[in-house]
Amino acid sequence: MLVSALLMSVGINSCLCVLLFILYSILRKQPHNYEVFLPRRLVAGTSKRRRNKVARYIPSVRWIWKSWRPSEEELMASSGLDGVVFMRMITFSLKVFLFAGIIGVFVILPVNVFGDQLTQINYSDWLWVHFGAIYLVTAFVCCLLYLEFRYIGMKRIEHFHSSKPQPNQFTILVRNVPSSDGATVSDTVDRFFRENHSSTYLSHVVIHRTSKLRSVVDNAKKLYKKVHHKKQADPQRVKKTPMRFFSRKDTPEGHYEKVLQELEHNIRLGQAEVSSPGKEVRAAFVSFKSRYGAAMALHMPQSVNPTYWLTEPAPEPHDVHWPFFSASFMQKWLSKIVIAFACLILTALFLVPVVLVQGLTNLSALEYFFPFLTLILSMKIVSQIITGYLPSLILQTSLKIVPPIMEFLSSFQGHICHSDIQKSACNKVIWFTIWNVFFATVFSGSAFYKLSVILDPKEILFKLAVAVPAQASFFIAYVVTTGWTDTLTELFRVVPFMVSYVKRSLEPTEEEFEVPPMRYHRDTPRVLFFGLLGITYFFLAPLILPFIFLYFVLAYIIYRNQFINVYEPKYETGGMFWPMIHYTMIFSLVLMHGIAIGLFALKKMELATYLLIPLPVFTLLFNEFCRKRFMPIFTAYPAEVLTKRDREDQNDPRMGEFYDNLVSAYQDPALRPLRFSGSRNDSLTSPLLSSTSSEV
Amino acid sequence: MLVSALLMSVGINSCLCVLLFILYSILRKQPHNYEVFLPRRLVAGTSKRRRNKVARYIPSVRWIWKSWRPSEEELMASSGLDGVVFMRMITFSLKVFLFAGIIGVFVILPVNVFGDQLTQINYSDWLWVHFGAIYLVTAFVCCLLYLEFRYIGMKRIEHFHSSKPQPNQFTILVRNVPSSDGATVSDTVDRFFRENHSSTYLSHVVIHRTSKLRSVVDNAKKLYKKVHHKKQADPQRVKKTPMRFFSRKDTPEGHYEKVLQELEHNIRLGQAEVSSPGKEVRAAFVSFKSRYGAAMALHMPQSVNPTYWLTEPAPEPHDVHWPFFSASFMQKWLSKIVIAFACLILTALFLVPVVLVQGLTNLSALEYFFPFLTLILSMKIVSQIITGYLPSLILQTSLKIVPPIMEFLSSFQGHICHSDIQKSACNKVIWFTIWNVFFATVFSGSAFYKLSVILDPKEILFKLAVAVPAQASFFIAYVVTTGWTDTLTELFRVVPFMVSYVKRSLEPTEEEFEVPPMRYHRDTPRVLFFGLLGITYFFLAPLILPFIFLYFVLAYIIYRNQFINVYEPKYETGGMFWPMIHYTMIFSLVLMHGIAIGLFALKKMELATYLLIPLPVFTLLFNEFCRKRFMPIFTAYPAEVLTKRDREDQNDPRMGEFYDNLVSAYQDPALRPLRFSGSRNDSLTSPLLSSTSSEV
Repeated sequence: MLVSALLMSVGINSCLCVLLFILYSILRKQPHNYEVFLPRRLVAGTSKRRRNKVARYIPSVRWIWKSWRPSEEELMASSGLDGVVFMRMITFSLKVFLFAGIIGVFVILPVNVFGDQLTQINYSDWLWVHFGAIYLVTAFVCCLLYLEFRYIGMKRIEHFHSSKPQPNQFTILVRNVPSSDGATVSDTVDRFFRENHSSTYLSHVVIHRTSKLRSVVDNAKKLYKKVHHKKQADPQRVKKTPMRFFSRKDTPEGHYEKVLQELEHNIRLGQAEVSSPGKEVRAAFVSFKSRYGAAMALHMPQSVNPTYWLTEPAPEPHDVHWPFFSASFMQKWLSKIVIAFACLILTALFLVPVVLVQGLTNLSALEYFFPFLTLILSMKIVSQIITGYLPSLILQTSLKIVPPIMEFLSSFQGHICHSDIQKSACNKVIWFTIWNVFFATVFSGSAFYKLSVILDPKEILFKLAVAVPAQASFFIAYVVTTGWTDTLTELFRVVPFMVSYVKRSLEPTEEEFEVPPMRYHRDTPRVLFFGLLGITYFFLAPLILPFIFLYFVLAYIIYRNQFINVYEPKYETGGMFWPMIHYTMIFSLVLMHGIAIGLFALKKMELATYLLIPLPVFTLLFNEFCRKRFMPIFTAYPAEVLTKRDREDQNDPRMGEFYDNLVSAYQDPALRPLRFSGSRNDSLTSPLLSSTSSEV
Repeated sequence: MLVSALLMSVGINSCLCVLLFILYSILRKQPHNYEVFLPRRLVAGTSKRRRNKVARYIPSVRWIWKSWRPSEEELMASSGLDGVVFMRMITFSLKVFLFAGIIGVFVILPVNVFGDQLTQINYSDWLWVHFGAIYLVTAFVCCLLYLEFRYIGMKRIEHFHSSKPQPNQFTILVRNVPSSDGATVSDTVDRFFRENHSSTYLSHVVIHRTSKLRSVVDNAKKLYKKVHHKKQADPQRVKKTPMRFFSRKDTPEGHYEKVLQELEHNIRLGQAEVSSPGKEVRAAFVSFKSRYGAAMALHMPQSVNPTYWLTEPAPEPHDVHWPFFSASFMQKWLSKIVIAFACLILTALFLVPVVLVQGLTNLSALEYFFPFLTLILSMKIVSQIITGYLPSLILQTSLKIVPPIMEFLSSFQGHICHSDIQKSACNKVIWFTIWNVFFATVFSGSAFYKLSVILDPKEILFKLAVAVPAQASFFIAYVVTTGWTDTLTELFRVVPFMVSYVKRSLEPTEEEFEVPPMRYHRDTPRVLFFGLLGITYFFLAPLILPFIFLYFVLAYIIYRNQFINVYEPKYETGGMFWPMIHYTMIFSLVLMHGIAIGLFALKKMELATYLLIPLPVFTLLFNEFCRKRFMPIFTAYPAEVLTKRDREDQNDPRMGEFYDNLVSAYQDPALRPLRFSGSRNDSLTSPLLSSTSSEV
């Protein structure tokens, strides 16, 4: 890749960046775009649709200041601890790159320029500056990591203290309930916990196989929504708008009612069938009278046979991934292996088709396939755009599809809740990104990329040290500025924007719009990746540091804005994302040390090489220390926190009501009684309710 | 080493073996040897000293049948679960070598002889027999391992069910108690457990720094014993026997009394000083009202800061290694590192001085140093004994000193109880044995032993396959028969026998004799090693299998006998030795697979090589399965067992008394009130008792 093409890409991205900022400033003020840009505030009722003002066609920067303004407490209130942790990841990176940027631009950059871009050997003395900078930045990052880990751990405890009683705090999930002759799973669970945790046991809900029933219920709900919507809309309109749900174009309302009644009847029959003991899964949610009681049952080994009565913390009720429970052991086991293999293949071979498509976008290929373009392509500016920007656009677009794919794959992996699926997807995307964009792209940027490097790990440090040449700054700047545009387009939520626009133009009714959920698995790896890139190459390519710093400023503005106005958290992991961020940073530090050791060895600075070796060792020891010191807070709440919270609840008069709700909190949604029309009498639904509720 | 010398060694050892059997049969029947050979039965009063019978000079085999007879229940009653597990290790090996022996002698041995001892290549088809035998024996050993692990796990639970309430079942050890301003450790512990485990907390005992006081108390006890003994003995005798304890030869009894009084006073002062809060260690034994309560506190994370309030199961009260608690954090940390290093050095370099000394015993060296021996050395039988047997005798003698050294080192490693020290020493001796006798000796037996093998792990499998040549059978038989003699000499408890004999000849009084404790760390590795050797080389050296089978028959007789008559268990780990035995067996299986793969690759049998690779993988997976399935039973008792046991106790009227004892069970022995003479009035001891007892 030529430097001129790189510069072109940097330029285009910077221009796009400014353009997008201005566009957003104007578009967000248009009332008919509020549903796209400010759905949260619309739902909360804090924003009114203003109409007919000139001001809304003039770009403003007030929203930027608004994004800076809210304090952590407000963010916590609106987006939970997960949002806070996500923002702290960005501020953490901001701090790191302010520090590294000052060292990089004012110390290392002059040395590099003076030393003729690291290509000559006769400036060994100057390399000691790099050596010192590596030690300094490592120490700074480690200090920050320690403080952040401690702070977030503390926040986690605080958050727990201030949270209302929640069903998942009182509940555990028990799996591999052993089968006993004659007794149902429900009886077995009840007897076991009554015997062994008599003082704290409250109730349980056995899980049933409901995958078929669930699809019926979901379809019925969709249909009901549709009908309900039609009824409320103008009858005139109903006739005009084509109904695509049924084959008949004009259906009398009575028909809908009949279909709904039939569906309701079928669902009720299905629910009764599924609730029978034969459809029981050997797993149950077991609730306790106190958080302490639940933790006790969670931590203690239960059974003489340790493969039975496996306990784990229960997820939040609406976070449960119900389909998973229906799978048999063999299905789970097979799908796990298949998916691990699929991820590996996808990660390892993703670049092959992308690079092929990128190859098609060079000038001669384009001229061959589209001869009529020859004239346009001969213009210098067009050819530069095509060689410099088009390949990166293709790469970025294909990268966009990875997070959904990874989430899709993770959903088959046997996770019991959505947040686990997202966390697993996040991990997959991180490794995908590290492998593909980091290693593969950086390597392919130089001439050293070949499989042999991968196959001979001894050589990899040397190769890395050689592979990131003097042009690294430009190259990485290109990656970072691509990131700018990429992050900014998030502001526009391009796809939902288009869908919503098309929908409304087809069927201009006041549809209920949904606040989209925040998807950490999609955004965390992207943000992490730039931090990783910056830390790893900071001493080789100091020129990129201001670019990366700017990236994080942008990210800060944008994410504080898609949190306050757009996205809503659908679950709360209590900051469980932080350990992942921590480990990734440690990984990049050790990678940086590896590259530095390779470089110093290459430059024959033996003393510096040996003096650097303790650094990764100490970094890993530091990581081990952090793991020991902070990880337990992230896996379970300690006894002193639980008992304190339990004591506070003892005198709360609302706890009676909470316990009543707790008993049915983990009811499978597919087994909940459904009522589509007011004409149904209650006698039909009430017996069903009692048969599916947990036996207390 | 020549084959003739090896045969000589095998012959000598076999002869010694028979001789020792006969000697033992006679010596054990001599009444004045009862204290050496039958101390347990003497103490239990089940054996009377018979005198003046001719029968006791005639060797008999009745004791062998007696050793075979007792059932597992009797062994459990006399030696606890640890004894049972130890014996099951031997019967397990017996089963393995009966099976392997039949395959080895009737299938593999003929193939090897027919194939000219593996030296020719043109019998590739026959190597498939080896291939099949490896699969067969691996499957057999894995099946047995699974059954044993399950059986011992079950026994462990049964043993727990049938055991009387024991203080350690109700108690946990808490370390790293955080310091709070003004409050003593005792107050902090009390408040914490009252707050967080209010329903189950019973009492606690804070640990104090008592290392200095302990040595004073120990000396005083020794002195008191001496004086007490003197008083009871004939006054005439006292004058005759030289008193080596005090410098004066003739001391009036009044002087002793005075010295004892002074000591008693000093100890009381010391106890009062040590009991002050300033001498508190930040650790405490915390007792609970039920086993379930103790387990709850043990398993649950306690503190917001996970480095505080660390919990672990309490050892049995008399098993506590008190000196350890006195060490500061820095001392513990340093001693850990120093000792790990010392063990490594000892293990790696142990053979160097031994081989040097062995080198001195060759003929020319002996003739050079002791010219007058020339005539004797020229006799063929003498020279064969010297070259064949003396080196092995030197090796075995030096190996004898290893277990005590390892125990000594382990005692500084920060273990809180004697059983942990022994377990750690056992582990060290196992690795020492594997490294020194297994690798080093087997390698040095061939010409291939050099450091380069160790430094290039890729080559090690090939080298191993080459290094165990056709003579391996003889060579290993030599090691095994040496083991025979070695194990048999255990019967004589040579050193205590000598000591006791010398003592009685110097001072022919009726001393209280002590039943020696069973030392698993000394015997387990020895027995394990031969199992390991046999499994690893069974397909290369089938001739050794009968030798090893005989070894285990011997071991069975001897250990059932050193359990029933001699040794007494001083602590009970509840079969915690089994996982170690299991892992060692898995190690030897995988090592065998490695050697087989190396051998087949060497013989250019590619198909067999590839077909063998899944075997170690499956073995390791099997190990992982066993670890998951059974290990939890060995680390903690599950809830259902604890609650069952607790319920049984609820109606037991003796529990009140048990709780009273529990409160002071973990009192440091150095802080217990001492009374040497009846003349002391109780008013002096009673306030001390109350100040050191736990605050309930």
